[in-house]
Amino acid sequence: MSVPMARRIDSMRPSEIREILKLTQKPGVISFAGGLPSPELFPAKELAAVTAVILEKDGASALQYAPTEGHGPLREAVAARMNAKRGTRVTAEEILITSGSQQGLDLAGKIFLDPGDVVLCESPTYIGAINAFRAYEPRFVEVPTDDDGMVPESLEWILETERPKFVYAIPDFQNPSGRCWSLERRKAFMEIVTRWSIPVLEDCPYAELRFEGDDLPSLKSMDEKGLVAFLGSFSKVFCPGLRVGWTAADPEILRKLVIAKQGADLHTSSLCQRQVEAYLRLYDMDANVHRICDTYRVRRDAMVGAMDREFPKDLSFTRPRGGFFLWVEMREGMDARAVLEKALEKEVAFIPGAPFFPCGGHENSLRLNYATMDGPRIEEGIARLAGGLREV
Amino acid sequence: MSVPMARRIDSMRPSEIREILKLTQKPGVISFAGGLPSPELFPAKELAAVTAVILEKDGASALQYAPTEGHGPLREAVAARMNAKRGTRVTAEEILITSGSQQGLDLAGKIFLDPGDVVLCESPTYIGAINAFRAYEPRFVEVPTDDDGMVPESLEWILETERPKFVYAIPDFQNPSGRCWSLERRKAFMEIVTRWSIPVLEDCPYAELRFEGDDLPSLKSMDEKGLVAFLGSFSKVFCPGLRVGWTAADPEILRKLVIAKQGADLHTSSLCQRQVEAYLRLYDMDANVHRICDTYRVRRDAMVGAMDREFPKDLSFTRPRGGFFLWVEMREGMDARAVLEKALEKEVAFIPGAPFFPCGGHENSLRLNYATMDGPRIEEGIARLAGGLREV
Repeated sequence: MSVPMARRIDSMRPSEIREILKLTQKPGVISFAGGLPSPELFPAKELAAVTAVILEKDGASALQYAPTEGHGPLREAVAARMNAKRGTRVTAEEILITSGSQQGLDLAGKIFLDPGDVVLCESPTYIGAINAFRAYEPRFVEVPTDDDGMVPESLEWILETERPKFVYAIPDFQNPSGRCWSLERRKAFMEIVTRWSIPVLEDCPYAELRFEGDDLPSLKSMDEKGLVAFLGSFSKVFCPGLRVGWTAADPEILRKLVIAKQGADLHTSSLCQRQVEAYLRLYDMDANVHRICDTYRVRRDAMVGAMDREFPKDLSFTRPRGGFFLWVEMREGMDARAVLEKALEKEVAFIPGAPFFPCGGHENSLRLNYATMDGPRIEEGIARLAGGLREV
Repeated sequence: MSVPMARRIDSMRPSEIREILKLTQKPGVISFAGGLPSPELFPAKELAAVTAVILEKDGASALQYAPTEGHGPLREAVAARMNAKRGTRVTAEEILITSGSQQGLDLAGKIFLDPGDVVLCESPTYIGAINAFRAYEPRFVEVPTDDDGMVPESLEWILETERPKFVYAIPDFQNPSGRCWSLERRKAFMEIVTRWSIPVLEDCPYAELRFEGDDLPSLKSMDEKGLVAFLGSFSKVFCPGLRVGWTAADPEILRKLVIAKQGADLHTSSLCQRQVEAYLRLYDMDANVHRICDTYRVRRDAMVGAMDREFPKDLSFTRPRGGFFLWVEMREGMDARAVLEKALEKEVAFIPGAPFFPCGGHENSLRLNYATMDGPRIEEGIARLAGGLREV
């Protein structure tokens, strides 16, 4: 029977992507739709080895309730690795281990947002963040974004009239666009949010998956006022199935996140936390990341090459230097949902771009994932998609 | 620096229990304070065996992203076991796998509660539920509760003036009181909520840990209108560290919970879900539960026996027939926090009862856990506590 629900339920829609993913699971369909890493790169053997040791030597703790903040040695290892890779100076006490970095989005929404509060985000932005925040009934304002990142003048202009609770940003190889903010934009952004004292959620699952060029400093590394909460993930550089991520934040913000997490799930799996910690201690994570980058670089090249050859010339797309995703903009007036129908007839799938814009519009955009399959299959899929595009 | 937070933060306090637990971790302290199961009963060897097989045969899926609803075979196994043990008739499609049953509390709060909405609960009730719900800013109304459960006349009387979004109940060996609702009370309760069409959250982590007497039917098994969402847990009958629980609910409610969970953490650890499923398939969970019951029954007897011998006679306590906890009420006017100070001097610890009452009061009550340690240590701890009580 029907019972009264919370008001927020009206804005919490089932993800359109989930519905599309169901359509793409038919055999024969080449799917660029998902956001999955390539499973043959998961270190299953190494995980089996560390799990055997953990359960033999430390089973009583690995299977017991544990502190909400996370497993101490993992917090240490995460802080050390983050400082080495992202130029930060965080301590283990500033790390909260989360059930995937997705949980960090939910907890941040919970501690920051009252109904009607404003969240600033890139345009487009990650749909999983939109959905997590929507449960707290904010109003989204998209900051104009180009290939170098959020446009500082636009951000400044918006701050003249809006007082956001936080800015949500994915500066490195963003899902869905594949864009990476330039160094100048990072500096300009941090200068503005510091001057206005606006908290920032820096979502950073892809930064290590850089195929070429030099690493750029994280926003958190330029944070002088403790405004940036950094969301980290092992899902893309290791494997997503363990659901182990982290949030690094100033002590005052971290304390609130810990209270929120305690109510949400008490703590993240004790065993999964120990598995990640043991892998970081006993194996070479950097070598694993190199292997992943080498694989995805070839696939990115295969997709970009095929699109250069096959796609209509009135269509533009990003040429990502890292991450999973490539972003396509068709002629104004074209509708990616109509293209998807045609594409599915030809047994190829992608995700229409509109759901990545919380304020609507952009029906002429779409997202492609090149990470999940090998080059020849990518080329076959792009050929099919090009055929569909020509017919629409 | 200080930044504006959500209004709800004011009501989300750090758990008083966590602060006390820190005090009890000094060596030499006998702690009845925690809510931990006894770790020597965890099936670490069996888990090592199933994990090796999972990672060898199914590593790519066990480490990959997965559907929010949960691992299909685990949903099947959970539905079958729940129907066998709790008298229900749920299907796998009505099961959502959660990151511990704690997550079910958070998700239920999220889909049901707007600020100011009323939640009815037992008096006392589980502090982790109070904290989970508080994030959604409800008003709690405690329903008078005696040794047989919620008092039906009181519930009915409250419903004349309050329109709760749901009733939260722990009918079997409740945390913190150890009480178990009688069959008559269950029937009377279900008759009332069915007549008023009030949703129910039935939190059921302890029902299988029955030391004597016959199983009683779950509220969910008496649910004719699809009003009861049942929260199940493997933490007490298996181990808590994997963080695998479930919610069984009518399809309409389940769909909303799935959307809420997708934003909260995408899904529960793929590997941990497979570990539980493989254990249920390959080992004898019932035998494991029997072993746990045999162990805890002896400990319950040790604690009750020692309290009968040692405790002042102006104090009453429950004699639980299952679960982890025993509940003590001292004379009116006594303060369990003062007793705790004295007890800590004597190196014994417990949890004051007041935090389990969301509407306040009851400073003369306290909770003891008999599950975590063996009989002689329990007797030593009770002797120390009795000494402290005599001195206060």
